[in-house]
Amino acid sequence: MPTTDNALSPLHPLLYEKTVRRALLEDLGRAGDLTTDAIVPAGSAAAAVIVARKGGRIAGTGVAAAAFQCLDPHVEVDANVPDGADAAAGEIVAGIRGSARAILSAERVALNFLARLSGIATSTRDIVGALAPFGTRVVCTRKTTPGLRILEKYAVRAGGGFNHRFGLDDAVLIKDNHRVIAGGIEEAVRRVRLHAGHMVKIEVEVDTLEELKEALALKVDAVLLDNMPPETLEQGVRMARGKALTEASGGITPENAPAIAAAGVDLISIGWITHSSPALDVSLDLL
Amino acid sequence: MPTTDNALSPLHPLLYEKTVRRALLEDLGRAGDLTTDAIVPAGSAAAAVIVARKGGRIAGTGVAAAAFQCLDPHVEVDANVPDGADAAAGEIVAGIRGSARAILSAERVALNFLARLSGIATSTRDIVGALAPFGTRVVCTRKTTPGLRILEKYAVRAGGGFNHRFGLDDAVLIKDNHRVIAGGIEEAVRRVRLHAGHMVKIEVEVDTLEELKEALALKVDAVLLDNMPPETLEQGVRMARGKALTEASGGITPENAPAIAAAGVDLISIGWITHSSPALDVSLDLL
Amino acid sequence: MPTTDNALSPLHPLLYEKTVRRALLEDLGRAGDLTTDAIVPAGSAAAAVIVARKGGRIAGTGVAAAAFQCLDPHVEVDANVPDGADAAAGEIVAGIRGSARAILSAERVALNFLARLSGIATSTRDIVGALAPFGTRVVCTRKTTPGLRILEKYAVRAGGGFNHRFGLDDAVLIKDNHRVIAGGIEEAVRRVRLHAGHMVKIEVEVDTLEELKEALALKVDAVLLDNMPPETLEQGVRMARGKALTEASGGITPENAPAIAAAGVDLISIGWITHSSPALDVSLDLL
Amino acid sequence: MPTTDNALSPLHPLLYEKTVRRALLEDLGRAGDLTTDAIVPAGSAAAAVIVARKGGRIAGTGVAAAAFQCLDPHVEVDANVPDGADAAAGEIVAGIRGSARAILSAERVALNFLARLSGIATSTRDIVGALAPFGTRVVCTRKTTPGLRILEKYAVRAGGGFNHRFGLDDAVLIKDNHRVIAGGIEEAVRRVRLHAGHMVKIEVEVDTLEELKEALALKVDAVLLDNMPPETLEQGVRMARGKALTEASGGITPENAPAIAAAGVDLISIGWITHSSPALDVSLDLL
Amino acid sequence: MPTTDNALSPLHPLLYEKTVRRALLEDLGRAGDLTTDAIVPAGSAAAAVIVARKGGRIAGTGVAAAAFQCLDPHVEVDANVPDGADAAAGEIVAGIRGSARAILSAERVALNFLARLSGIATSTRDIVGALAPFGTRVVCTRKTTPGLRILEKYAVRAGGGFNHRFGLDDAVLIKDNHRVIAGGIEEAVRRVRLHAGHMVKIEVEVDTLEELKEALALKVDAVLLDNMPPETLEQGVRMARGKALTEASGGITPENAPAIAAAGVDLISIGWITHSSPALDVSLDLL
Amino acid sequence: MPTTDNALSPLHPLLYEKTVRRALLEDLGRAGDLTTDAIVPAGSAAAAVIVARKGGRIAGTGVAAAAFQCLDPHVEVDANVPDGADAAAGEIVAGIRGSARAILSAERVALNFLARLSGIATSTRDIVGALAPFGTRVVCTRKTTPGLRILEKYAVRAGGGFNHRFGLDDAVLIKDNHRVIAGGIEEAVRRVRLHAGHMVKIEVEVDTLEELKEALALKVDAVLLDNMPPETLEQGVRMARGKALTEASGGITPENAPAIAAAGVDLISIGWITHSSPALDVSLDLL
Repeated sequence: MPTTDNALSPLHPLLYEKTVRRALLEDLGRAGDLTTDAIVPAGSAAAAVIVARKGGRIAGTGVAAAAFQCLDPHVEVDANVPDGADAAAGEIVAGIRGSARAILSAERVALNFLARLSGIATSTRDIVGALAPFGTRVVCTRKTTPGLRILEKYAVRAGGGFNHRFGLDDAVLIKDNHRVIAGGIEEAVRRVRLHAGHMVKIEVEVDTLEELKEALALKVDAVLLDNMPPETLEQGVRMARGKALTEASGGITPENAPAIAAAGVDLISIGWITHSSPALDVSLDLL
Repeated sequence: MPTTDNALSPLHPLLYEKTVRRALLEDLGRAGDLTTDAIVPAGSAAAAVIVARKGGRIAGTGVAAAAFQCLDPHVEVDANVPDGADAAAGEIVAGIRGSARAILSAERVALNFLARLSGIATSTRDIVGALAPFGTRVVCTRKTTPGLRILEKYAVRAGGGFNHRFGLDDAVLIKDNHRVIAGGIEEAVRRVRLHAGHMVKIEVEVDTLEELKEALALKVDAVLLDNMPPETLEQGVRMARGKALTEASGGITPENAPAIAAAGVDLISIGWITHSSPALDVSLDLL
Repeated sequence: MPTTDNALSPLHPLLYEKTVRRALLEDLGRAGDLTTDAIVPAGSAAAAVIVARKGGRIAGTGVAAAAFQCLDPHVEVDANVPDGADAAAGEIVAGIRGSARAILSAERVALNFLARLSGIATSTRDIVGALAPFGTRVVCTRKTTPGLRILEKYAVRAGGGFNHRFGLDDAVLIKDNHRVIAGGIEEAVRRVRLHAGHMVKIEVEVDTLEELKEALALKVDAVLLDNMPPETLEQGVRMARGKALTEASGGITPENAPAIAAAGVDLISIGWITHSSPALDVSLDLL
Repeated sequence: MPTTDNALSPLHPLLYEKTVRRALLEDLGRAGDLTTDAIVPAGSAAAAVIVARKGGRIAGTGVAAAAFQCLDPHVEVDANVPDGADAAAGEIVAGIRGSARAILSAERVALNFLARLSGIATSTRDIVGALAPFGTRVVCTRKTTPGLRILEKYAVRAGGGFNHRFGLDDAVLIKDNHRVIAGGIEEAVRRVRLHAGHMVKIEVEVDTLEELKEALALKVDAVLLDNMPPETLEQGVRMARGKALTEASGGITPENAPAIAAAGVDLISIGWITHSSPALDVSLDLL
Repeated sequence: MPTTDNALSPLHPLLYEKTVRRALLEDLGRAGDLTTDAIVPAGSAAAAVIVARKGGRIAGTGVAAAAFQCLDPHVEVDANVPDGADAAAGEIVAGIRGSARAILSAERVALNFLARLSGIATSTRDIVGALAPFGTRVVCTRKTTPGLRILEKYAVRAGGGFNHRFGLDDAVLIKDNHRVIAGGIEEAVRRVRLHAGHMVKIEVEVDTLEELKEALALKVDAVLLDNMPPETLEQGVRMARGKALTEASGGITPENAPAIAAAGVDLISIGWITHSSPALDVSLDLL
Repeated sequence: MPTTDNALSPLHPLLYEKTVRRALLEDLGRAGDLTTDAIVPAGSAAAAVIVARKGGRIAGTGVAAAAFQCLDPHVEVDANVPDGADAAAGEIVAGIRGSARAILSAERVALNFLARLSGIATSTRDIVGALAPFGTRVVCTRKTTPGLRILEKYAVRAGGGFNHRFGLDDAVLIKDNHRVIAGGIEEAVRRVRLHAGHMVKIEVEVDTLEELKEALALKVDAVLLDNMPPETLEQGVRMARGKALTEASGGITPENAPAIAAAGVDLISIGWITHSSPALDVSLDLL
């Protein structure tokens, strides 16, 4: 299982164009950009650059471009630092040319997308780098911003991470509550196998090595070792070797991730990168 | 001008119900919650609590409740800590009772809203507290998450802050680029006054005291003092007293905010609280 | 405060394109234009003109063009009389060239928009002209056609008028009912100031000079003098001078507007121009 | 063919509930009703009446009720004057009881619908009354407000009129332009009959008695006699008797309608009732 | 009344583009085409053909083209067999050139539309052919796939059939249940005539010759002879000649249709062609 | 791997309620049910039963109920034959009680859903039964009706079948075209593993035993044996035993399925059940 995604494929705009459009309308409201409409003549052109004020991993230039082009399809956006690459502090991320009104009116929305996605990509990159010596994959969770999951999961890939489930419907993850309601892991897995198709993977969350043993006996695809201390993790990893993928999860931060990776798990999933990464500082300068 | 909003009014659900519905569909995908649907019998009931794992200011219980009730209108959610109040670490924020399937399938979406909004409210509360001695209002910006502006601006109010413009259409803010294109502040303000209605306020961003003087002469409602060092800010505040509201902005963080407030500005606007606040750690425990 | 808007800025199509699309689908229904589809060959081209059968102020050529172009993006529409200018009776407003099917199928929708918006612009123009000697601004209200507010407010500007609030969320207007519920103007204003941001203007509706006095003492931005006879209005205007903008409202028609303007108010708001203006007679002639 | 519709059937809410919801969101914007939210406590109740300030035919109480109930489903609306009945000047049209916030925040939208639809119903009623001696049906056209066709056609029925086509897809109307493109009425009708189903009626617009003769020979269902002077109309009516329904159209106003009806046509279609009827003056009074 | 529609007019894309877009998003889900995005380089081009594996009547090439072009507007689709024409087994229906990603990712959606619509067109064509000797029109019903009515009715026309009502709102069909509730055919027709406009046709379903007599006396436009044996049908046809169109309906299949047509009815309506036609086998081959 | 799904879990209405609503609006059009609205008094109640005219496996009673309840939430629908059970010819499937208007106006849409889904469930049931002796799973494909995938996949489960991928985003299926573009199976799988998350299964389509060997060496989760004759299939099954799931696909019909199952494959996927199953004959009878 590779631990770094070196094949960042662009998202098809169909997957986010409504999100961009909605964001623009959220900012333009009913009446549009009062300031720009009053001051900037309708036909005037401008050129601008988007600059990274701090260094980081870039994600979202396509989305930002879509914001400008939603206001005027003739706006040209040339990425200088493509998604998945690093920008140094002060470096130009993209050049923009076209309608001055479109550039000024879409500026904030474009930057809001780019700043958030690049913030996630940057945090991911840093953790991926820190875990590289251990060969551990960094994966995201479903703790994403409501409405932006597809974009934030893309940002994780831009940072060198991988994606866990996209939602409740593309894989099975049997958690504590499911196990309790079913009356045991075995019965939970049995029910799932009667319901789910053959292309659906099954992962089971376990809190103890006892539970781990039970899950492994059922030949599930992966086990989520929840909130285990490093030594227990190590034991779990040994037990699972060759039988199921091991994923550590629960309260993982950039600080404690290396210690956990050292236990030898295949994957570390970390909600922090999508729900608490600070935005990357990017700005637009008119030339 | 009051500096703390002690009158948090609930948002009308019409303003966010589509956002909640979209978030649920984003998580349920086409096929729904494979795990829960396979394991949890259709009619079974459950009770749960939402707990704040760390202390913070709560915002978003109504939105979280809407998530559960969108899956089953009979789910009851009782807020123990209302929006705008503080939860201690480990305190129960709300109790939930109803369909076990609805509770488990909406859990993640409900928590994603609550964690983000409470994170913003908590950061805001902390800064509002730190600036209380100076009588400075804390206001948010348009650097919000695309699609969540109305909710994030509400979270800022729950934290004791106030809202700046909701978008490009409800007030005028003449920025650098507008001034340059117009050929000066005076001409920019003149064009705006020909265009905007009498209920629209006008604020002008200024970089220097020269520009400030020019803006004040035009009797605008507010001036945004951009990235000025504290001494310059103090001078600006003296010049503007009784003539226009003064707002400091630009690169403000929780750390440097008090020093800026000490300069005597009426308002400090801070993008950080919406684009970089970490989420509050909240979880759902089935009883 | 200028009394004529000589800076009509075009609306961004993003603000109305869904409205146009919905209107076309409302007319095309499920099966499309039965008559045209049966009779007009798919590839045939045509040229047409839109003619003003009566003289008036034009508004909505961009919206009309969007209707044709929504059916065929290659249709060309050249405005002969731009929005905000006057067409004489019989004058060509715009020339159209392109797909015969698109022109015939979108004709009614395009004209429905143009006729209504030009009707509003024409009425506004007439009243603005009648009030010119008094230096009074003509403003519209929220008594607009459901779904068309942004377009109708634009038409008012095309007629030389100005816009009042765009909705309930971009400014505060404390009416009778609010005052009664709050227990007085002072308390109502106090509550609003705890809630609203610093970029939100506050206007208070008053029925008597007593109430006016109370409102002015609270330093609100504007006062709405509701249904006052001219002499009382004159007194009110004198009291408010230099303290707040004065707006007369209530049952104003094109007929009684000049008498009210003579009292010296800054603004006259008139629901009639949006809810009862007759449409301008415009038609499309195939060449 | 009856000339008065005494069987006004209520519209199913599914046909207009999105229109109502959109209208409310258009007024509430992003931030909601700033004034009411700040002043009116969240749980307070109120009672109100909608009053007709001038006499007229009522249409739209169900739509108005839907507006209040969209904000709070517990608001009760009791119609005192049902749709299709007349209200005297000063008469109470409906009583309303429920959440004070919902009543105040939906007031304007509810009245905007009711005023427009009742205005159309009132104009229709007056013309229907004036034409009663002639046994002529009054029918509306497709010159309706974009987005409100279904409601405006309902208002016409509430006024005692009948509906022409609802759109381009539910009947065939061969106009001048179609005839010219086809190269004659006969060819136009032939093409339509190859295309349209057996449940689709065909009407042909004619400008001269020659054309009328040609159309009648083709056994179409109805003929539209466009802009003919009364004497020609009379001749046309005689020619068509027993062969096709006769409809007079083109520039008809409340003033000239009786003279045209006197020519004996079966139907008079009149765009004026939907595009230029003044709104009925209705208001909401809190009790 | 012609019995074959030799004038197939293309549907305007506005009538189906949302349906196509929704179908693509249904297939792409949140994350897009995992396989293609991972394997096919973003800029690579491809050429392909759509082939009919079995012979049939083609319908839906425009819809299929819209699917590819929704993913990439530069994809070119050249129809080799136009809608309404027959493809032999193995014949190329259309050629496609453009983005390899767009072609592979839209392939299934494009084929799903084309296969279903061509399946309907093929079945219709076969029945139309079988009934040709009798001069009977083949018409479809409202038993269409939810969401695809407009497309399936178009496919029927492509097969040489005609369309019955498009929905409940464009013509009146008085069925058994309506008659019973009204208390008789006469009262049912009376109520309808008070309600419906003059462009709405009225058809009455009858089960016996008694009922047929009653319906004909009311001069309705058409009568639906429901589930009658051939001899009764023949009698009914004789009774209705020159008075109303006759339509046979109820349990008609490709097998029993000719026997029914032999009774001389004007139309045979057959739900089978839309709800049970097998899909035409079409596939896409990359060149 | 179980071969029959005995745990049919109901779909959450959130997953189909928009589809139902759209289908109703498709049938009601702009003006609603002209016939019912004219004839049936607004308040009248009725009772009805849905009857299976032919025997079959039922699927879709919940969707049908949603159709009635979308028009009137008080309509009660009691399933007599639940989804996933068999109805005999003539058996009552469900009883309905409530508003006569709602029942009559939603009848066709409710039946259209029920007939199609039950048709698919019935076909699936028959094939599942025929393959029971071989222990082969029956799975559906992506050849579903555009817009109805989630419902049709549910119908397959109701018939005892299982679901393959729900779309392009929840599993990887490397087809011929992907292999050719990648330059081989190995490279295709390598690219996919760099891109996809650890919860995504990978299946490879193979045409020959050579390719099968190559795929198995890569340890993919499943192999699709495309259009292989029975003897080759048997060999392939032997080669893959214990290494990957085997799926037979390509031109499979109810007739040839048993012969293919006899070859010992784990799964047979069959597009026919969703694209060509005839509808089940169901009708609604008013009591």
